[in-house]
Amino acid sequence: MAVNHQVILAEKPRGKLALENFQFAEAEVPSPTDGEVLVKARYVSLDAANRAWMQGVTYRAALGAGEVMAGGSLAEVVESRADHLAPGDLVFAETGWQEFAAVPAKHLAKLPKLEPLTHLLSVYGVTGLTAYFGLLRVGGPKPGETVVVSAAAGAVGSIVGQIAKIKGATVIGIAGGAEKCAWLTDQLGFDGAVDYKLGDVRRALRAACPNGVDVYFDNVGGDIFEAALFNMNNHGRIVCCGAVSQYDDVPPAHGPRGVPGLIVTKRLKVDGFVVMDFYADKDAALAELKSWVEAGKIKVQEDVIDGLENLPAALIGLLAGENRGKRMVRV
Amino acid sequence: MAVNHQVILAEKPRGKLALENFQFAEAEVPSPTDGEVLVKARYVSLDAANRAWMQGVTYRAALGAGEVMAGGSLAEVVESRADHLAPGDLVFAETGWQEFAAVPAKHLAKLPKLEPLTHLLSVYGVTGLTAYFGLLRVGGPKPGETVVVSAAAGAVGSIVGQIAKIKGATVIGIAGGAEKCAWLTDQLGFDGAVDYKLGDVRRALRAACPNGVDVYFDNVGGDIFEAALFNMNNHGRIVCCGAVSQYDDVPPAHGPRGVPGLIVTKRLKVDGFVVMDFYADKDAALAELKSWVEAGKIKVQEDVIDGLENLPAALIGLLAGENRGKRMVRV
Repeated sequence: MAVNHQVILAEKPRGKLALENFQFAEAEVPSPTDGEVLVKARYVSLDAANRAWMQGVTYRAALGAGEVMAGGSLAEVVESRADHLAPGDLVFAETGWQEFAAVPAKHLAKLPKLEPLTHLLSVYGVTGLTAYFGLLRVGGPKPGETVVVSAAAGAVGSIVGQIAKIKGATVIGIAGGAEKCAWLTDQLGFDGAVDYKLGDVRRALRAACPNGVDVYFDNVGGDIFEAALFNMNNHGRIVCCGAVSQYDDVPPAHGPRGVPGLIVTKRLKVDGFVVMDFYADKDAALAELKSWVEAGKIKVQEDVIDGLENLPAALIGLLAGENRGKRMVRV
Repeated sequence: MAVNHQVILAEKPRGKLALENFQFAEAEVPSPTDGEVLVKARYVSLDAANRAWMQGVTYRAALGAGEVMAGGSLAEVVESRADHLAPGDLVFAETGWQEFAAVPAKHLAKLPKLEPLTHLLSVYGVTGLTAYFGLLRVGGPKPGETVVVSAAAGAVGSIVGQIAKIKGATVIGIAGGAEKCAWLTDQLGFDGAVDYKLGDVRRALRAACPNGVDVYFDNVGGDIFEAALFNMNNHGRIVCCGAVSQYDDVPPAHGPRGVPGLIVTKRLKVDGFVVMDFYADKDAALAELKSWVEAGKIKVQEDVIDGLENLPAALIGLLAGENRGKRMVRV
């Protein structure tokens, strides 16, 4: 059988993630045992959380040096030892960064073969569901309210902003660089954008949100979290989705100012969530997302890079904010 | 008419609050206008929030130098120009630190003349309602869960812990000094206590809460907030009630570590509240508190100091944590 090309996390990064932290390897293609399927990765999903896994225990076990780098993929079943899956079926599986993986089939669901397939990793995947449930279930924006989203040009943020517009909110995105900001307002229909690379995000947000901020969808943590916190209205909601600014380095020495003082005086709700907690309602959410995409109300932006060998650079670039929309690597 | 003795905030403190920040003054007793009542303060409530008002806008306007120090009192109506109040009636009013005040009557409610009157400022006042609504509506502890409360020997904290016990939780209090800690466990029925003066609260909490923390009721902010945050269980709730550690000094340079990273990975709810938001349900809450006090399930601890002239020292001492239970000054 074919060789299984892999990307190994050679050593855990001490500071910023670098190419030297990875190694390439070849292994035998594994054989599935009872209840497993052998899958071939088609598209590997790149997510800021990949980096967080290297830091320690999050919602999954910490990742160790010498292991195949962890990650999820849109993958095709090659050999099945589970009743509900057959060769050719598409699944989303925790394959890690490698061509082939034998994985337990119990929690794998057969995905529809829609076109383009990449949408299964973006708007119809974890990304879209994270935006959907985080904004609507945790943030709960009302028509006329002001919603701010950070990493707004990223995979989740770009969908969050568009859903908020559908729900009648005024939407301001925070992104890095004039080009991304223009894309948010000109192409995605955001009402405004703040370029964090210009500095003083707190003041820029105040100017962009004359009525204050009712919902802040946080993808980054750190100084931008703090800037939003100081602009929140009473009874505002902060949706804690990720803290990408804090993943790619040693853990920060301090958290944002105003915690918990402003949370008290403004009666804020600051709620973390993990998308899997809402999976009972996944099908209804996907149906609604599909209707919005088909009606042209959500524009899906994807950033597809070719080749397993480019995975390390793709993740490093994602952490530096170079992508627009959902980044993935075609294997 | 009699002279009105007052305590003036002579200048805003730059660092820790000190006696020099206050001055004593005498003024004429004011006359109520239409819709106002003239009241005489009986007991002035001491609250950590008094200090926060000097820092800037909170849920009320900032307090300026040269003004009568702000504060609430259990007060008796002396002269009424409002239909629903008559001389001799008791009310809770924003009198400030002075013997007499003419205040708008519209939002004043006549209080029952129960014994001891001081309970109207402690368990049946803002203090008791803050503990009740904050714990039950915001924290929502379930039987068998672990509840941690900081400033546990203080006015709000001592009631929070006792209500949590009534609701079947395991309760750990954080307080300063062995004496207070012993009081919590021996007299109030707490399951355990952590003395923050011994240092490493994070480790001490871990030892005191072998099953982790499900609800943390925060009265202090700062390092103790951080210590609790790191001990939270998945889906835990942090009730942000106050941040006393951050009031009596220049605003802190940084917030607690782990925000928002741990909020995401542990799916925490970190919610601020102000007790007035729940006042629609005040009567039912007071009835339930009364039933618990009468059944001996809540022991009410009060710390009553005599004399208007002792108000500055009483507040300074409260901020240093010297009180046990609800502190007030009899005028």
